[in-house]
Parts: sequence; C-alpha cells; structure tokens
Amino acid sequence: MTPKRVLLTQLIFCFVLTCGGLAFAQAADSLPSWKDGKAKQSIIEFVTKVTKQGSRYFVPVDERIATFDNDGTLWAEKPAYFQLLFALDRVMALAPQHPEWKDKEPFASLLKGDTKAALAGGEHAILEIVMATHAGTTTAEFKKIVEDWLATAKHPVSKRPYTEMVYQPMLELLAYLRANGFKTFIVSGGGIEFMRPWTEKVYGIPPEQVVGSSIKTKYEIRDGKPVLVRLPELDFFDDKEGKPVAINQYIGRRPIAAFGNSDGDLQMLQWTTAGQGPRFALYVHHTDAEREWAYDRKSSIGRLDKGLEEAKVKGWTVVDMKQDWMVIYPFEKR
Amino acid sequence: MTPKRVLLTQLIFCFVLTCGGLAFAQAADSLPSWKDGKAKQSIIEFVTKVTKQGSRYFVPVDERIATFDNDGTLWAEKPAYFQLLFALDRVMALAPQHPEWKDKEPFASLLKGDTKAALAGGEHAILEIVMATHAGTTTAEFKKIVEDWLATAKHPVSKRPYTEMVYQPMLELLAYLRANGFKTFIVSGGGIEFMRPWTEKVYGIPPEQVVGSSIKTKYEIRDGKPVLVRLPELDFFDDKEGKPVAINQYIGRRPIAAFGNSDGDLQMLQWTTAGQGPRFALYVHHTDAEREWAYDRKSSIGRLDKGLEEAKVKGWTVVDMKQDWMVIYPFEKR
Repeated sequence: MTPKRVLLTQLIFCFVLTCGGLAFAQAADSLPSWKDGKAKQSIIEFVTKVTKQGSRYFVPVDERIATFDNDGTLWAEKPAYFQLLFALDRVMALAPQHPEWKDKEPFASLLKGDTKAALAGGEHAILEIVMATHAGTTTAEFKKIVEDWLATAKHPVSKRPYTEMVYQPMLELLAYLRANGFKTFIVSGGGIEFMRPWTEKVYGIPPEQVVGSSIKTKYEIRDGKPVLVRLPELDFFDDKEGKPVAINQYIGRRPIAAFGNSDGDLQMLQWTTAGQGPRFALYVHHTDAEREWAYDRKSSIGRLDKGLEEAKVKGWTVVDMKQDWMVIYPFEKR
Repeated sequence: MTPKRVLLTQLIFCFVLTCGGLAFAQAADSLPSWKDGKAKQSIIEFVTKVTKQGSRYFVPVDERIATFDNDGTLWAEKPAYFQLLFALDRVMALAPQHPEWKDKEPFASLLKGDTKAALAGGEHAILEIVMATHAGTTTAEFKKIVEDWLATAKHPVSKRPYTEMVYQPMLELLAYLRANGFKTFIVSGGGIEFMRPWTEKVYGIPPEQVVGSSIKTKYEIRDGKPVLVRLPELDFFDDKEGKPVAINQYIGRRPIAAFGNSDGDLQMLQWTTAGQGPRFALYVHHTDAEREWAYDRKSSIGRLDKGLEEAKVKGWTVVDMKQDWMVIYPFEKR
C-alpha cells in the first residue's frame, strides 16, 4: 500500500472503532438508574427489536411514537396533584382582588386554611377553584404566572422546586427512546398550558408534543393587538377514554409505546397495544414508601387497580419503583 | 509539511469546498418555480435573516414554526372545496343504504344531480351532508374511505387525481423551509382526518403536524378491541378566529411565518405577525384565470377581501400567481 492508502485505511479503521465504541457505550449506559431486571430488559428488548433494520419487527422512524402520562409517571403526584397545589396558591394570591370569596365556598374554607372542607364539595368545588385560578387571563399572562410559580414554589414535603420532583429513570428512558428515533409525547390529565412552559427544559419535550386537558380560549383584539383569552369553560378532559381520543386528535397516529401509572392511563395503554406490529406498554407502580410514596388500588390520586389486573393478563411491564429504580429523583445522584 | 499533513489538508479543503458548493447550489435552486421578483426575494430574505447565526434576527431551530392553510394555499379549491366534492361522492356511494334520502333534503336534490338546489339550504344543508358522510364510522374505516377515494376520484376540470392539484411553488417552499430548520404545519378549515391520510406523502407534513376542523370521537370496545367512533357532532371549526385558537391548542407556540390565501386565514396571519422578533406573512392571490382560477373579493369560496387590504397596510407578501409562479402544478413540469 502507498502511504496515502495506509493513512486512509487507518482513518477509516479509527472512525469505525470510535463509532462502534460510542454505540456500545450508549446502549450500555443509557438507563444507568434502572437496576438490571425484567423491567429494564423488556424496554431494551423492545427498542432493539423495532430499530433493527431488516428485522420483521422493524418500525420506520416516523412511526416511533411514544406517549407518556405526566402526574405519577414523569413527576410525583403526592401529597396532591402539583397543579392543584398551584391552584391553591393562586387562590391565596388572588384573594385580595376577590373580597367576595370570604363568604363563598370553596374559597372561604381555603382562605381559612381548611383545604379538606374546601374540597368536600368534590368535583364541583375543584372545578370552581380551577376556573377561578386558570381562566380570565390571556395565554401569555397565564404562561408567566406558571413560570413565576415554578421559580419560587416548593414541594410541601421535600421543600424542593416541583420541577426537581421528576423521576430520574424516566428522564433516562425519554432520552434513550429519542436517541433511538422515537418522538416522545406527553398525554396527561393535567392542564396543557400548565405543562407547556417547562416540559422542554425539564423533559426535552417541546410544547407541540404536549397533550393535556384544556379550557376554551377566545381570539380578541385588545389595543390593536391580538390576544387569546382563557375562558372559564372546560374544553377537553384528557383522562381515561379521553386519552385515546386526544391521541387521535393531536397526534393522528397510534403510539407504539405508552407509559402510565394509573387507571386513568388504562385506555391509552389498551389503544396503544391494540395496534398491529410490536407494541409496548408500561406501568410505573408506586411501591416505595421510603424514597417516594407507596399507593395503588385504594388511592384517590393516581389509583392503579383495574390497570394492575390488565397488566398481568396482557403481560405489560410493571415497574416496581422500590426494586427497579436505583434512584428516584435527579438530586439523589448529587 | 509531511505527506500525511498534506493529505489531511487536502481532505479538509475538499470537504469545505464540497459543503460550501452544496450550500450555494441549494440556496440558488431551492425555489426554481418562483420567478425572480419581490415575492421570492422576500421569502429568501426572511429565511436568510432568521437562520444566520449571530445575527440579531436569528431564531433558534425549535422556534422556527411555519403554518400553512391548505385549500387554495397548498392545493386548489375550485370549482368547490375538494372535501365537499368528496362528501357529494360519498352521498352517492351511501345512497343504497339510505332509501329515506330519496324524500329528504338536501339528499333528494343531490341524488337527482341538482347540487345547487341541495346547497340552497346553506350552512345547515352542508352540515347535514358532512355529518352523514363523515360520521358513523371508526377512525380507521374513515381513513380507508379517504384513501380509496383519493386513489380513484378525478378533479372535474383537470381530470387528474386531486393530490396532483397541488401547487409546485408551494411544495418547493415547504421543502426550502424544512431544509432551513423550520417545522411546517398545516392549519386548515378542512377536516383534520380528511387531510392526515395523505399530507405526509404529498407535502412531507406528518399527521401530528396537521391541524384542522374536527368532529367528536368516542372510545369504545367492540368485540374486545378498542375503536374510536366518529360522532355526528362538530368538535372544532378551524377557520378565522379559530385558527389562532387551534395554533395555541395544538402547537402551543406562535408561528414565526404563516401562509394563507383567504380572509379565513387573516387572524392566523395577524396572530403570527403580532409576535416579537422577525415575522413573515404571505398571501397567495389567485390571479391566473388561464392556468388556475382568478378570484378574490367576490368569491364565495376562498374570499380574499379584508386580507388583501391588511396585507397592503402591513407590508405582507402577496403572491401574484400569474406573475410570480413559472408553473402552478407539478404535472406542468413533465
């Protein structure tokens, strides 16, 4: 060989070696917070299967759609949904502008610090609180309110910002799927405009890949400038049967993988796995009373009962948080 | 220099030269069906400005959102909206299963071939036709109906498949924007599930980037399998004030560029250009009676009246189809 050719051969060899090495390292390290076990293995097997060119299970990149519930799946949901805690904080902040709340339930009880009495009104009370705190602003104003709250509010138990109460193993899973050509979506019962201001920074999921519950908005010209005003009227409740409906509405194709933690996600997992070809469904089971919370069949928030049965019957992956996850939150790693 | 270093320098030089050459060729040829002129120039200037690293007008890739109307902007809309022609064909196909239509308007007139009398009932008549032909199936069944229709139906004037009645210069524009890091969306008054089966193949726009009007769907288990059933109930009408509402709902951020052809797109263009930083708005003006159709202020379909005034005042780009486009349809190139 001429010196040139020797050099070229060396260059190509180095390149192949480097790329090969990187690919191996990535596969080995992409889920470092997942203990070796059935759950981790099932994820890697599925991803390997659908990404292997020429395999009968191969799925083209643009069909690699993965949907994730948010509350209890990507971040914690105890002692209550974080969005409800946001709403309660907003009631306090808005109270000076609403002297009438002193004599009006559920606000009167809330202002006295009696959340339990306030929420005794059930769904109707919650809806009143949500509308009073989520509507009446423009979309731009609401975004700023959410951002300001997240920048200062602290979780009542951990005393950390809410955006730190996310699950480290799930962050790794999101990144692992995206590195393998998946498009990751959130499909949550939470408010779509409550999530979008921060999901890109925290999860790497851009606003246009966030699906959630919504209230109606109205286009208006104010002082010559167009604004969207948030109306006190429910538009869509993205839970249970609503999740496949919203997936069809927003995404327009069926996911090949879906991730949830409660009976509210059951229909999303059914819809996902009923499609043709390889499919993957995973439930996060809250089993760790020490590092997080342990709850399932009897919990009013994040109840996992029917879903746990169906997962057994259908062979879906069930993550035992206590057993399967080395760490729960990113801050445990520091 | 050692021979090795000489070779390396040569390699780097070749690489730079090749890439530089490709970039130049791409910029020069990316809009070949656009005649040199103000419209083409305004597009290239905007794209160059927002993609130039370090420029004060630079926009990060993930904020490069561009929204396109469909009817009259990406494909033709004469002699009537293609989806209305689809609905009329469906009435004929479904008539044997609906003997009662013989005595019931607007169906009776349609079956006699008197479209004008049928549509005399106005919006109510159209809504009846749309619901009778777009609801009652599952989402999977409806997708197949649309695909089958597009595979066989011919445009009444050109006698070509409807998916060939798309505008070649707009296909080039979509590709040019994507090559420059833009995410391209459709935001149309047309039915979301009427568009999604073919937009990826025809425009390179995947289902999850298609926003449109919709009817409600319902999740059901049939024979143990989940399905989504299309209900005869309007969910959302994505036109006029509805377009900014839908953009916020589906995309969750404001586009930096928007493209339309009628007063139905005016609010989308207003909303887009009211954002901070560099913005671009373009109207396609139907001025070519010979190669396409010429219509604007007086047309019942695709009326462009208020929009034309506002475009003048605000300095938006107005494409004169007759003057600015070398070809209208892709088949003219062959």
